[in-house]
Amino acid sequence: MDTIEFLKPRREVLSRREVIVSDLADLLPEGALVSDPRGLVPFETDAFIAYRNLPLAVALPSTTEQVAAVLTYCSRYGIPVVPRGAGTSLSGGAIPQEDAVVIGLSKMSRILDVDFSNRTATVQAGVTNLSVSEAVSADGFFYAPDPSSQLACTIGGNIGMNSGGAHCLKYGVTANNLLGVKMVLYDGTVIEVGGKALDAAGYDLLGLICGSEGQLGIVTEATVRLIAKPEGARPVLFGFASAEEAGACVADVIGAGIIPVAIEFMDKQAIAICEPFAQAGYPMDAEALLIVEVEGSEAEMEAMLASIIEIARKHGVTTIRESQSALEAALIWKGRKSAFGATGRIADYICMDGTVPLGQLSYVLQKTAEIVARYGLRVANVFHAGDGNMHPLILYNINDPEDAARAEAAGNDILRLCVDAGGCLTGEHGVGIEKRDLMLHQYAQVDLDQQMAARAAFDPDWIMNPSKVFPLEGRPAA
Amino acid sequence: MDTIEFLKPRREVLSRREVIVSDLADLLPEGALVSDPRGLVPFETDAFIAYRNLPLAVALPSTTEQVAAVLTYCSRYGIPVVPRGAGTSLSGGAIPQEDAVVIGLSKMSRILDVDFSNRTATVQAGVTNLSVSEAVSADGFFYAPDPSSQLACTIGGNIGMNSGGAHCLKYGVTANNLLGVKMVLYDGTVIEVGGKALDAAGYDLLGLICGSEGQLGIVTEATVRLIAKPEGARPVLFGFASAEEAGACVADVIGAGIIPVAIEFMDKQAIAICEPFAQAGYPMDAEALLIVEVEGSEAEMEAMLASIIEIARKHGVTTIRESQSALEAALIWKGRKSAFGATGRIADYICMDGTVPLGQLSYVLQKTAEIVARYGLRVANVFHAGDGNMHPLILYNINDPEDAARAEAAGNDILRLCVDAGGCLTGEHGVGIEKRDLMLHQYAQVDLDQQMAARAAFDPDWIMNPSKVFPLEGRPAA
Repeated sequence: MDTIEFLKPRREVLSRREVIVSDLADLLPEGALVSDPRGLVPFETDAFIAYRNLPLAVALPSTTEQVAAVLTYCSRYGIPVVPRGAGTSLSGGAIPQEDAVVIGLSKMSRILDVDFSNRTATVQAGVTNLSVSEAVSADGFFYAPDPSSQLACTIGGNIGMNSGGAHCLKYGVTANNLLGVKMVLYDGTVIEVGGKALDAAGYDLLGLICGSEGQLGIVTEATVRLIAKPEGARPVLFGFASAEEAGACVADVIGAGIIPVAIEFMDKQAIAICEPFAQAGYPMDAEALLIVEVEGSEAEMEAMLASIIEIARKHGVTTIRESQSALEAALIWKGRKSAFGATGRIADYICMDGTVPLGQLSYVLQKTAEIVARYGLRVANVFHAGDGNMHPLILYNINDPEDAARAEAAGNDILRLCVDAGGCLTGEHGVGIEKRDLMLHQYAQVDLDQQMAARAAFDPDWIMNPSKVFPLEGRPAA
Repeated sequence: MDTIEFLKPRREVLSRREVIVSDLADLLPEGALVSDPRGLVPFETDAFIAYRNLPLAVALPSTTEQVAAVLTYCSRYGIPVVPRGAGTSLSGGAIPQEDAVVIGLSKMSRILDVDFSNRTATVQAGVTNLSVSEAVSADGFFYAPDPSSQLACTIGGNIGMNSGGAHCLKYGVTANNLLGVKMVLYDGTVIEVGGKALDAAGYDLLGLICGSEGQLGIVTEATVRLIAKPEGARPVLFGFASAEEAGACVADVIGAGIIPVAIEFMDKQAIAICEPFAQAGYPMDAEALLIVEVEGSEAEMEAMLASIIEIARKHGVTTIRESQSALEAALIWKGRKSAFGATGRIADYICMDGTVPLGQLSYVLQKTAEIVARYGLRVANVFHAGDGNMHPLILYNINDPEDAARAEAAGNDILRLCVDAGGCLTGEHGVGIEKRDLMLHQYAQVDLDQQMAARAAFDPDWIMNPSKVFPLEGRPAA
């Protein structure tokens, strides 16, 4: 064969990009490599939308072996790789760089095994979050982590970002519901971590992988915990005369050892935005409201509610509305769940994701209002209060670059405020591109060095999603 | 000063050991370095007792800074270090090697902070497990993981081994109840990981550290989750006509989505050993019994018990005894909790710690009996059935070397059986020395290589507890 090499010198006149595209296409089934600019557009950004870049190419493998083949190739030639689930990241975790190959897991969307006696489901990484619950619903089970994007987002993406949701107060985030993964390392090696058993021998690489934002490898299969559906569930609406009292009420409920399924918080601005849109019957005179969901048998729900109501009264609760029907329950949730959509109708916004100790909720709410006012902007607060995961929505005009800069600056100030109050930069959205430079406000350089050393143990050449998580300065020389 | 160096050549005639002892003593307060052979004896082994070695010296620091000083020194001169809590490890995790410096955390036993609104306690690593619960008990809280050794074992040791206990079926193991640590790396660098908030930005080093058996650094402070005590709790005794039916009953309870606080299993042999000792009123005619503990309000306990009893009847339950008083409840638990002590009265034993998928419980019990019979030995089974964490006690005579070798061989066969049934080598005791060579039965070499790469990111020179966890062959060249 070597002797006829001179007959086809065509390869030498191809650009580097063309060679890569041609080689990758050979490794994948027909149609599984996207390289024309029009086809690449859907992959240029994610739900963070602040930045966009066309990647070099997009691979859409159907099997773990194909993922391994692409990674083996890319690592050999030092080509950056960006894993992608459904592209719903709010921190820019799936935004590609220009020289990167995106590996999209959308074709790997099968549920492989459901095992009720071990309460596990094993799925491919591209399956959507909601489909897991749907597949086991008829048997009385569900998968607990429920990000707002659960209709679209994938289990692989959830693992990358350690995603949460309104129900993680009771059931924990992705890390608490993940039992095992099959993962392809940067050089194409396939490893298995964890399994159906409670705990694995040796190191818990699973905990490290969960939340590592696609930098340690590409998860292709996951075994997750299934949970039995409760007998009943009921959301209750509590209105307060001040945001401080609402915040203090949350801290006291949790401090009393009561763990409802969810405690959601909406301030006056959020109520004013959502109520006209959702017609949920929220009290327009309240300065803040809490949606507290309890679950279990009728007796359990009654007992827990009685304790919560007693605490709420100490904080001068002005409205208590228990849902009396499934319709009313749905309506109470509708206002909360439509908050982001309703906000988008009246303004552009960025959604921050800081987490604070519950004792600091009231203080941080007040300081957040001061920060945003200082930049001449408005803010609406609607968030998972039970675990202190705040989501201030900063309203601005995306077409006014100065306004956008002010919103970004206010957002950064708010995240610094959360860290200074003893909290952290992100509750469930991840660091991504958005918060990488703020990591130095959260961590000392020695802490980051140790995180980067762990990263290098998986990806010594920094080809996996390299532009995310860590500040661009202070990285080890490549 | 250099000019008078010739006046004191004493140092040159000291042995390496003497120099190390002298240098370490200078780094620590008076009396905090043990080096005389008699003082070293209590540190020569742990609860595994199969091996013993006098270490080079034992450092007993009182502060994180002293731990850092000792590690800085040891890493500079390549001296192996073995961290030690209370020495209750059942897998040899705290057994020193002859050339190692043991760092004992027993002097660091203060509770630093209790924060009910965040449901956290921050403690030094040498505090005992039970003292954490005792410190918050009056306020209605407890710390959930409850190893049998909880009176003695330390939070630092629990983190190293990712310890569990009877209550981890409902509340999870140490990893599920740990929020943050302060840790000293091999070279003396002090890092902080996690904190009071739900999830930290960046990598979850906490998950990796938990269960890493003292190889990634020495934890000196930990922030743990507190849980509110339930309104009530009640153990119920179920007797069965066969071990297979008891095992199948456990799988069906969990498969129905019911999660009691604990489901403990005892076979006929274990009952025969424990009942004469504890006088717990166990049914001597049963082939196996389950102790199922439910908790919550009276109504919740009744509802859950009704469902469990219905399932037990399908498996031909022969005895059901609900405790009617605190005294009866204590008696039901007394038999179970005295199992290891009662066994020790009639024979020497080794306690295995495999974990299997619940669907395999009955099969593994039967095969275990066959394996042990093949070696001419006896076995008693008493274990955490709800999460599939088996503890076969293999009875033998420690003074008969052949008998001891047969017991060890039978134990290894049983652990291989657990792995082959889809389970793993250890549920809560760790790998330690005991199971390091079996790791190759659980993992492919690529899986172990990746674990060792993660290890090397924390301790490139392998000075931290080096003889544990990984097979002695197949390690990277030091």
